[in-house]
Amino acid sequence: MSLWEGNRIKDINEADFGRKEIEIAEVEMPGLMACREEFGPSQILKGARITGSLHMTIQTAVLIETLHKLGADLRWCSCNIFSTQDHAAAAIAKAGSAKVFAWKGENLQEYWELTFEALNFPNNQGPTILVDDGGDATMMILEGAKWEKIYEERKELPDPARYETEDEKNLYAVLKRTIPEDPTRWRRCIKDLAGVSEETTTGVHRLYQIAKKGELPFPAINVNDSVTKSKFDNVYGCRHSLPDGIFRATDVMIAGKKVVICGFGDVGKGCAEAMVGCGARVYVTEIDPICALQACMKGLQVVRLESVLKEADIFITTTGNKNIIMAEHMAQMKNNAIVGNIGHFDNEIDYHGLCNWPEIKKVEIKPQVERFQFPDGHGVIMLAQGRLLNLGCATGHPSFVMSNSFTNQTLAQIELWTNRNTGKYKNEVYKLPKELDEKVARLHLKSLGAELTVLSKEQADYIHVPVEGPYKNEDYKY
Amino acid sequence: MSLWEGNRIKDINEADFGRKEIEIAEVEMPGLMACREEFGPSQILKGARITGSLHMTIQTAVLIETLHKLGADLRWCSCNIFSTQDHAAAAIAKAGSAKVFAWKGENLQEYWELTFEALNFPNNQGPTILVDDGGDATMMILEGAKWEKIYEERKELPDPARYETEDEKNLYAVLKRTIPEDPTRWRRCIKDLAGVSEETTTGVHRLYQIAKKGELPFPAINVNDSVTKSKFDNVYGCRHSLPDGIFRATDVMIAGKKVVICGFGDVGKGCAEAMVGCGARVYVTEIDPICALQACMKGLQVVRLESVLKEADIFITTTGNKNIIMAEHMAQMKNNAIVGNIGHFDNEIDYHGLCNWPEIKKVEIKPQVERFQFPDGHGVIMLAQGRLLNLGCATGHPSFVMSNSFTNQTLAQIELWTNRNTGKYKNEVYKLPKELDEKVARLHLKSLGAELTVLSKEQADYIHVPVEGPYKNEDYKY
Amino acid sequence: MSLWEGNRIKDINEADFGRKEIEIAEVEMPGLMACREEFGPSQILKGARITGSLHMTIQTAVLIETLHKLGADLRWCSCNIFSTQDHAAAAIAKAGSAKVFAWKGENLQEYWELTFEALNFPNNQGPTILVDDGGDATMMILEGAKWEKIYEERKELPDPARYETEDEKNLYAVLKRTIPEDPTRWRRCIKDLAGVSEETTTGVHRLYQIAKKGELPFPAINVNDSVTKSKFDNVYGCRHSLPDGIFRATDVMIAGKKVVICGFGDVGKGCAEAMVGCGARVYVTEIDPICALQACMKGLQVVRLESVLKEADIFITTTGNKNIIMAEHMAQMKNNAIVGNIGHFDNEIDYHGLCNWPEIKKVEIKPQVERFQFPDGHGVIMLAQGRLLNLGCATGHPSFVMSNSFTNQTLAQIELWTNRNTGKYKNEVYKLPKELDEKVARLHLKSLGAELTVLSKEQADYIHVPVEGPYKNEDYKY
Amino acid sequence: MSLWEGNRIKDINEADFGRKEIEIAEVEMPGLMACREEFGPSQILKGARITGSLHMTIQTAVLIETLHKLGADLRWCSCNIFSTQDHAAAAIAKAGSAKVFAWKGENLQEYWELTFEALNFPNNQGPTILVDDGGDATMMILEGAKWEKIYEERKELPDPARYETEDEKNLYAVLKRTIPEDPTRWRRCIKDLAGVSEETTTGVHRLYQIAKKGELPFPAINVNDSVTKSKFDNVYGCRHSLPDGIFRATDVMIAGKKVVICGFGDVGKGCAEAMVGCGARVYVTEIDPICALQACMKGLQVVRLESVLKEADIFITTTGNKNIIMAEHMAQMKNNAIVGNIGHFDNEIDYHGLCNWPEIKKVEIKPQVERFQFPDGHGVIMLAQGRLLNLGCATGHPSFVMSNSFTNQTLAQIELWTNRNTGKYKNEVYKLPKELDEKVARLHLKSLGAELTVLSKEQADYIHVPVEGPYKNEDYKY
Repeated sequence: MSLWEGNRIKDINEADFGRKEIEIAEVEMPGLMACREEFGPSQILKGARITGSLHMTIQTAVLIETLHKLGADLRWCSCNIFSTQDHAAAAIAKAGSAKVFAWKGENLQEYWELTFEALNFPNNQGPTILVDDGGDATMMILEGAKWEKIYEERKELPDPARYETEDEKNLYAVLKRTIPEDPTRWRRCIKDLAGVSEETTTGVHRLYQIAKKGELPFPAINVNDSVTKSKFDNVYGCRHSLPDGIFRATDVMIAGKKVVICGFGDVGKGCAEAMVGCGARVYVTEIDPICALQACMKGLQVVRLESVLKEADIFITTTGNKNIIMAEHMAQMKNNAIVGNIGHFDNEIDYHGLCNWPEIKKVEIKPQVERFQFPDGHGVIMLAQGRLLNLGCATGHPSFVMSNSFTNQTLAQIELWTNRNTGKYKNEVYKLPKELDEKVARLHLKSLGAELTVLSKEQADYIHVPVEGPYKNEDYKY
Repeated sequence: MSLWEGNRIKDINEADFGRKEIEIAEVEMPGLMACREEFGPSQILKGARITGSLHMTIQTAVLIETLHKLGADLRWCSCNIFSTQDHAAAAIAKAGSAKVFAWKGENLQEYWELTFEALNFPNNQGPTILVDDGGDATMMILEGAKWEKIYEERKELPDPARYETEDEKNLYAVLKRTIPEDPTRWRRCIKDLAGVSEETTTGVHRLYQIAKKGELPFPAINVNDSVTKSKFDNVYGCRHSLPDGIFRATDVMIAGKKVVICGFGDVGKGCAEAMVGCGARVYVTEIDPICALQACMKGLQVVRLESVLKEADIFITTTGNKNIIMAEHMAQMKNNAIVGNIGHFDNEIDYHGLCNWPEIKKVEIKPQVERFQFPDGHGVIMLAQGRLLNLGCATGHPSFVMSNSFTNQTLAQIELWTNRNTGKYKNEVYKLPKELDEKVARLHLKSLGAELTVLSKEQADYIHVPVEGPYKNEDYKY
Repeated sequence: MSLWEGNRIKDINEADFGRKEIEIAEVEMPGLMACREEFGPSQILKGARITGSLHMTIQTAVLIETLHKLGADLRWCSCNIFSTQDHAAAAIAKAGSAKVFAWKGENLQEYWELTFEALNFPNNQGPTILVDDGGDATMMILEGAKWEKIYEERKELPDPARYETEDEKNLYAVLKRTIPEDPTRWRRCIKDLAGVSEETTTGVHRLYQIAKKGELPFPAINVNDSVTKSKFDNVYGCRHSLPDGIFRATDVMIAGKKVVICGFGDVGKGCAEAMVGCGARVYVTEIDPICALQACMKGLQVVRLESVLKEADIFITTTGNKNIIMAEHMAQMKNNAIVGNIGHFDNEIDYHGLCNWPEIKKVEIKPQVERFQFPDGHGVIMLAQGRLLNLGCATGHPSFVMSNSFTNQTLAQIELWTNRNTGKYKNEVYKLPKELDEKVARLHLKSLGAELTVLSKEQADYIHVPVEGPYKNEDYKY
Repeated sequence: MSLWEGNRIKDINEADFGRKEIEIAEVEMPGLMACREEFGPSQILKGARITGSLHMTIQTAVLIETLHKLGADLRWCSCNIFSTQDHAAAAIAKAGSAKVFAWKGENLQEYWELTFEALNFPNNQGPTILVDDGGDATMMILEGAKWEKIYEERKELPDPARYETEDEKNLYAVLKRTIPEDPTRWRRCIKDLAGVSEETTTGVHRLYQIAKKGELPFPAINVNDSVTKSKFDNVYGCRHSLPDGIFRATDVMIAGKKVVICGFGDVGKGCAEAMVGCGARVYVTEIDPICALQACMKGLQVVRLESVLKEADIFITTTGNKNIIMAEHMAQMKNNAIVGNIGHFDNEIDYHGLCNWPEIKKVEIKPQVERFQFPDGHGVIMLAQGRLLNLGCATGHPSFVMSNSFTNQTLAQIELWTNRNTGKYKNEVYKLPKELDEKVARLHLKSLGAELTVLSKEQADYIHVPVEGPYKNEDYKY
């Protein structure tokens, strides 16, 4: 990593490779391109200072350059120590679209330092809007402001040693060091902030909890629950990336195999559909009888994991819960059964238990693909150590999926910025209005050659909706 | 039609045929059978007087006998002048499971008289709970009570001639005649009523409007929006009955044909999936960009109707809106294009405009299948005169679909009855609690051989749900 | 039945209804319509006398009128005592397109008398070409000629009583009566015959056996094994008509059900695809490991019947073999399991054994749908008494399927007629040349809106085929 | 490359990595494992010297070790200069299962030298059976023998300079040098040869031409046309590897895209099914009307390439013909359309024309993925330079596919070896008997959990087949 003209990135020489991939990705991100066309000429974000804390990838680069072309001034860090694509970071830095503070393989100390840098604009200014993913940037601001007050009141500073996790220790170390340097930084920042748009479930969950306590000092937009975000991230994204990950990791033929999909929520629905499309026989496990019945109606067999442990070939967790496939389960599987997770978190699969199974032998077949051999000689093939296999073994969501997600982000940023003085948004958490959700969809139809029908006034009146939408109520199931 | 031991039905001789079909249907209605097992021994509806106003079909017969086996005393009429299956009515009458007041092909005068009879239990009593479909029984009670008060106050009675529609004229004629006979009938009835469970969109819509004005005098449960009701009625029911209707009406091979599905809501989704399953090339028209994008992700072509008018073979409306396929459209279709509606109502297709096209020739190929020949010689095949083709040309929803719907009804009836004195339900419109929705699903899984997984306490806590459910929040999209 | 202007049909009054259906069917039979266009103006069959012995249905009516428009003089009978559609017969008779000798529900005596009449053109002439289905017309001619010689040699006539089956008794009774009347009829007929085109497996099998013994006195074209005939009759036809038959017979929802398809040949492949398309979980039984492996690659579970007897909901035989589902099997099925056959013949299912099961109770639910209740109380639903369920419970193959089959017939008739003096065809059994098979396909593409690519000369040379085809060798698998 | 204990391979250090992958692959190659079990104990190939000329990959390693475990002595070279996987070669060499003469990236001189070495066993002996892929080993033997005779007769040796291709120049250079060293080598070799089993279309084509001229001096088995080989290599293999190749090369989301599959033979059928499974809208181009009609029946749109040039997103050639997608076509495509070939050979796409388009700009995005930008600014993404994209951009066929192919090879080798003195095989080209084809299928069913039904004697007689098969005639279409 190096300091390059005010950025902190790994290698500016990768910028050209990054630029090539950005240009390819742009064609697959029509929503963002459409935003540039619609809002670029008016420079709608002129004057906005945006801090983004979101995986610094090629797709994010297209988001950054979209916000930049709309007039914003940007500083960017990643929200995960491993997720930066260095060629993407380099390309953005070189183009000057944003100042970038990210590289692949940061340590936790670096991570929080870089977040801090992304939040500090020149002239002792903070951002005026936030793009957050997981809520770390938001947390630094809120905790910063809290400790500023404590520091002001009783000169006390946070003590990193008192915090449990490495993560927290490092966050508070940064605050401890910097609050005395500028003891009103975070409170000035909050005063300037038009709001935050948050990308993920986890971050949104945090925001709702803060708001519930009445401690949210600026408006927040929950991008995560836009239909065009959640369906793409979950159903369509995973339908694409599950087979991709299995292919790259194992080269195994899926046709004819028995595949168990644990969970039939949105992710499970996408995964099951993909596996059926590959010619697999698909089994589903579910706890929710409604989702289970949906699986039946799709012609899928709903079973308990135990019922197919010994005969299935591939096991995929998608539940968002924990302890789904345990080491005891894997001990009973057939030889070279493949096990992977595409759900929320790595605790769906008991990787730890597997590693600690008595006399287990682990062989790395290739990066992110390990074979664990049990004492009886049979083995299981574990993908990505139980972490998200589509990220670990493939390249995550394709650009078109991210275009949906990031167009929601862009519209949320515009919404926050243009309403900074209108009073439309209180200090609460809002979902993006359905008309903007529909707009995101609309912006992606043209590149697919889809023609949308237009309601007549008479028809719109008949079903009690505006001609231009929104067309559905909030709890419509799609 | 005849009076038979207190019932008014068409032909008691059809009872045996009806009984055979009821027995077959029972096997396909596991939810209702499970209710009999669970709630029969305790006679949970003992003491309840139920009036049902809901299509008197074989499937409804299984509902009626379920409520009867739970202890209720029942009187039943149909909610549509054409929808009674006379052999079903006869079987119920003969078994004495309910008193039945219905036959196929009533006129509107008979219709309201029969509704009136179904609402009048012996000893001048009304029902204690209502099963309603479309809201006609509810309306008779509410209008009755309203006019009772007017009659009491100023001896005025409704004047049928002042109402616009035939329907209204006949309703008010009954009220006019009967109010003087028993001028407190409807108000006593309301006092006794634990509530109504309503089956359809239309009926639910009416109830919300009444409740909004504060005029609802008893609780109402909206069965229509239970997930297990709406998905089955819309997605799965139509996936079954669209090809069934086309097969029976036309014997046409769907494989290789171009089929246009107008609308990609739940009904459209089921229809499109069915047509793809038959080997058709499927086009979708949509006004909602989110639904349109979902169609794209399914590999379907989203077009405007005008773009494929001349080349498509089959056109199906599913929109719930009006004026979707106009006579002008049909004038441009290829010869013997098939046109049908499986959406809300018969105004999706301009049947009237077609009939009145200058020099059009109409030939009835067989009942519910007409060919309209335009002056230029080309013709279109119209199914069921633009009314619901799955009812007109096939037999509507299969028993398994109705089992989901009617198990919701049964649980709603139990909920209303057992809470008649608990104060749980105010005079408002409620959706069935999600745990009951999940219960309906649960009751249908066993007969499909599905095994449900059970959450551990630890897992349930991790995702913040009770072990036994409900598992999702209200706006979950399924 | 009645004699009407030289025809023997049931009711001439049904002619108008038949005509309407014929007109509808014509649009779905583009291959035949194209033949009319191409060969009608030259009257290519002028002078030909055609006898057809083939189910007298609406689709056959379109074939008959095609041959008629090509210049032929026709007489027609049915090849099955139940298969005539009386309104089709009437329409043809009324239009004078052919003389018709057929009605629904002939007895076997009538059957052979009618066949005889169809073979006798005015002026003591026989046909000059035959369209045969099953080989009965061919057999009458060959047996007639054989017995003429015996009669000539030793005045002996066949003795019906000596034959085993009712069928044979009636055939020989006709010959016994008529040979003395005209003792050279059949030999003159054979001399005039340019050949026969045979529709089915059974008939083709007979022809190969006769030819093998050197006893075939005229050329025969095996239409049955044209790819465009066999794929449509088997894969695509059954994919359409299996669900159609199940829908009409039982109204049962197929989604979520477990369906066992016995046999994964062409018929089984079509059936399995249809059931998957309906949302069923499909099991396949197979004896041939290659077909079984194909089923696996489609994601289907290959099992022995015994393994799923107790859990499956629907059982369909497609094997072309016998004793597939025995009464012992049915005794173990779950209550109201549905059993039907769409394979070759009614001995795939042990209907006889079922009827004779001790203390079995049979209830006819409706025509072609029976419930057999075993002494333990569980029952099975038997479709069409184990005969072809798509014919018994639905309307058989749709017009588009028959168009492929009958365009092969038409081209075969033209081929035989135009080569009657060229020596191209010896007294052997020929498959239709592949270029004609390809032509049949070509004639059906236009109505589906398909655009065919044309090889350049250079490309054709590169793969060693003529520009205009045929493109594949005989054992190409398609 | 290096000489290592008599092998010529690249790097023996890769042996352990190769061994790990071989062990994984074995589990996916049940047919070969079953052969080891069945034929290993009897050492059925004891005494056989096998030369293999076939891509030296991990899957081939499993074949080699199978033949080795059956008792054979083996020498192996690759049949393509790029296709060797060096870790596979190293693992085989290290294990001593065969002597290996192959590395990735040979030049043509090396290629023919290595083939020569693989054909020369110790003690001046040649092989007793050949495994060939493309016919190069066979050609070296036949040309060697031919020139030996010429050399014997008139002392003349081949003159490499007189041959046109680099390939031929190098082959004849080897012969020129070695014939004088041992002027009866190839004729002794031929005398010892029990035959050759040939893997591919090209090699089989050559063999038929040689046999036609009566110049084949030993029997040959055409493994290529076994159903279990051709269906797996074409339909199922490509269904797997087309999406795999597109995913790895471009990360593009296939759902919603318009994909054109040029050709609907076996490869095209597999490709189209895969793309439909991914959620694409699929267009097919075809020249053969029967295949085109099959596409229609699958619900696919059959078009000319020109009709969709401007709107489609992905173009894949599968025709086996040449000049399918020309530079002129690509000049009209939309920006970043993806173009690739999975058909026979790289002349399906006019890569040369594209490279030479005036003012075209080529950018390599990453290996095997190039973007060609036309002067107007739009570009196309070319996969694998128009060569097989599943090999270039992914890893070719998965092990399960190759297991089918190589089990055919193993059975063919056993058949040739055990019949070397029985006279069963003349010097002609034979397809593998259908019972062996069925056996290959049978050996793959168990690992998929499939249960095969067994015919009773009575049933077998009824359909005129042996109980144990084969069950179908030669031209059965599967």
